[in-house]
Amino acid sequence: MTYPSKLLKFAAFRWDGVPIRQYKTADAPYRGVTRQTLLGEGSGEEAFNFLTRYFEVEPGGYSTLERHRHPHAVVVIRGRGRVILGDATHDIAPFDCIYVAPGVAHQFRASGDEPLGFLCTVDRERDRPEVIE
Amino acid sequence: MTYPSKLLKFAAFRWDGVPIRQYKTADAPYRGVTRQTLLGEGSGEEAFNFLTRYFEVEPGGYSTLERHRHPHAVVVIRGRGRVILGDATHDIAPFDCIYVAPGVAHQFRASGDEPLGFLCTVDRERDRPEVIE
Repeated sequence: MTYPSKLLKFAAFRWDGVPIRQYKTADAPYRGVTRQTLLGEGSGEEAFNFLTRYFEVEPGGYSTLERHRHPHAVVVIRGRGRVILGDATHDIAPFDCIYVAPGVAHQFRASGDEPLGFLCTVDRERDRPEVIE
Repeated sequence: MTYPSKLLKFAAFRWDGVPIRQYKTADAPYRGVTRQTLLGEGSGEEAFNFLTRYFEVEPGGYSTLERHRHPHAVVVIRGRGRVILGDATHDIAPFDCIYVAPGVAHQFRASGDEPLGFLCTVDRERDRPEVIE
């Protein structure tokens, strides 16, 4: 069996045929975050054990403060922000890489006038986040 | 057991503490390619089932034409180039995403005056590439 390969052309932080989705369907505190799954969920992409997603946080927005057992591999590609990692907070900018280790509370916040955008790769099979109120 | 989280600051297509490595150690045809493993091989990063690498191809350079059973998730972040995917060739530019499906012959070539740089995520456990001469 062979699978199709695929090129997703980029323009203005959208990709060919990739829908912009709600960040979360569960009731959890966040503001101004969208999600696009770039690689791993398309037809014929069952071979991937991981998913490549793009998250965008609008100015003043933030993701849910949460933790889970699966790790995150994050690469910032747009804008500026701050990431909470456990007890620490760091400024982040394009192409900074962030390793979110298992069980560590984390949150991404946009700072400045441009959206904060980042790639976040995760295991396809993973535990559900625990929201920290 | 808890693991440390990590922020790798970016500057000029280098990351804090990440060594630039040889693209391949095996005898295979390529020109002007380097590799940096950004996430997944550091101390305490055993939780990752996948590795996030950055490859850079200098102007006029190219990666090995090869195929293997594990898929690639590629996101271009620098420069311009062309990718061979099976029988097709595509122009690529920053933030284009490429899904290299299992068994598909592929090669990345830099075009223009700037290096071509791309993120490439793979399973930690994966088969060895078959070089296509």
